[in-house]
Amino acid sequence: MASNVSAPTQFVDTKGERYAYRRFGKASADTAPLLLLQHFTGNLDNWDPAVTDPLATDRELILFDNAGIGQSSGTVPKTVAGMAQQAFAFLDALNLDTCDVVGYSLGGMVAQQMALEKPSVFRRMILVGTAPRGGEDIMHLEKPSLQKFLGDPTLRGYEVLQKIFFAPTPSSQSAGKQFIDRLALRKDDRDKPSGPEVAGAQTAAFRDWEQYKGERFSDLENIKQPTLVINGIFDEMIPVQNSYWLSAHLPNAVLMTYPDAGHGSLFQFHDSFTRQSAAFLSSDAAWAPY
Amino acid sequence: MASNVSAPTQFVDTKGERYAYRRFGKASADTAPLLLLQHFTGNLDNWDPAVTDPLATDRELILFDNAGIGQSSGTVPKTVAGMAQQAFAFLDALNLDTCDVVGYSLGGMVAQQMALEKPSVFRRMILVGTAPRGGEDIMHLEKPSLQKFLGDPTLRGYEVLQKIFFAPTPSSQSAGKQFIDRLALRKDDRDKPSGPEVAGAQTAAFRDWEQYKGERFSDLENIKQPTLVINGIFDEMIPVQNSYWLSAHLPNAVLMTYPDAGHGSLFQFHDSFTRQSAAFLSSDAAWAPY
Repeated sequence: MASNVSAPTQFVDTKGERYAYRRFGKASADTAPLLLLQHFTGNLDNWDPAVTDPLATDRELILFDNAGIGQSSGTVPKTVAGMAQQAFAFLDALNLDTCDVVGYSLGGMVAQQMALEKPSVFRRMILVGTAPRGGEDIMHLEKPSLQKFLGDPTLRGYEVLQKIFFAPTPSSQSAGKQFIDRLALRKDDRDKPSGPEVAGAQTAAFRDWEQYKGERFSDLENIKQPTLVINGIFDEMIPVQNSYWLSAHLPNAVLMTYPDAGHGSLFQFHDSFTRQSAAFLSSDAAWAPY
Repeated sequence: MASNVSAPTQFVDTKGERYAYRRFGKASADTAPLLLLQHFTGNLDNWDPAVTDPLATDRELILFDNAGIGQSSGTVPKTVAGMAQQAFAFLDALNLDTCDVVGYSLGGMVAQQMALEKPSVFRRMILVGTAPRGGEDIMHLEKPSLQKFLGDPTLRGYEVLQKIFFAPTPSSQSAGKQFIDRLALRKDDRDKPSGPEVAGAQTAAFRDWEQYKGERFSDLENIKQPTLVINGIFDEMIPVQNSYWLSAHLPNAVLMTYPDAGHGSLFQFHDSFTRQSAAFLSSDAAWAPY
């Protein structure tokens, strides 16, 4: 079975960089490839197989490390627009003119920026746990509610993700434990973890993304793709208000929120997320509702 | 085919009242009957066959006129709690202990009140275009944005619904025209339209519902059913903020919002609404995501 547990890491060269990626799943004439754009400090191994693998049964998935992440060369841009340029270069190197996209957290901002700059790049968009330019409270890791975990020396490796991606309920924490166990399923050919220089540059990009000029959220009117916006109700990293703004200002978006869930709502409710996403992506309707 | 265009109006007597109702669709051991609770001044004929009929292919639907509406006897209660008592009496008369529910607008308030008073009455709940107790801007028909249509003598019959249930875009208004055409499909055995005494009592119930005691929205913690909350982004009658509050404070709710749509979002996107509702109702999971 096509899986992010076993898909080989591949590389593609552009004039500027060498990008690491994984491409797996069932390509078909009926479905566009699905590009997955990753969260803060996340690399190829941070894509939960419970999310990727069910989606890969009916379409081809493309995960990639943006410049300066994992085994990709280069340095992490300090703006979302810079990351979008890198993603365009990567798609060009694969000869992909158009695809579907799941943009998660930081990746959702990159997806919005790409859609603004080149509308034809995406057929349909799924934006999870993300924010519009000019959004609020975007990845302020210095907040006490996050620092208590990020600064806890007893939490090791992915244990921090269990705490900060999931709500402080037994049910959500249990889902978080299963999530980090799944991230460890891949034993060979693992990606390179991100260091502090990645976090620093990406944090600069968040601070820039909170700024806006002109009428707030007016950019969103120009993103006309059918879009599915998803957020957990208890997201401490990028609060759900940002998804309310996204879905209210994008002209063609359906919003879905999940209960009992934080930033990792797609991992907690992976059965629902993959079912809903597949149904949404399978639609050819002009309007987003599916 | 089972349809609200053709289902006969039936009557059932309780100690207090005689209730008009329609019951149709495919009953089965796998599905609970689905009770539909109606909007402000709506009667049995206000249920769009494009919403009822697809749902009726896999379950039994029960539409009813609460006391003082349509061909039911009695007077319209001036509180949501009074309406809930009538709905309980109606269900008792049908010997129904438990069912699923679609509560639309005012009907969604009645559904919440019933779930609070007798949690076992509902297995799963769908709340569309409605508000929690203590919500804001609930059915203020005196607002200029609504009065310009409600006070327009050139609009006849259902034409007012096209204006106030749908967004002021060509696409939404076109969907609204199709909606009111569908409401006119039933030719025989039509229900009795509501008069001003219905509107007056129901408006009093809305004003009461805006009031709350104690901590705002804390009642919602006690509604534990899996719940699907749906709202149009451009709802002038009960703004989407009320559905944000519902889904954030109900412990087990999924929110779905529709673009380009007003109070009648379920009628505009009837294909999506019935597909999503059927998927949600078909789930036996403890958590609402489906």
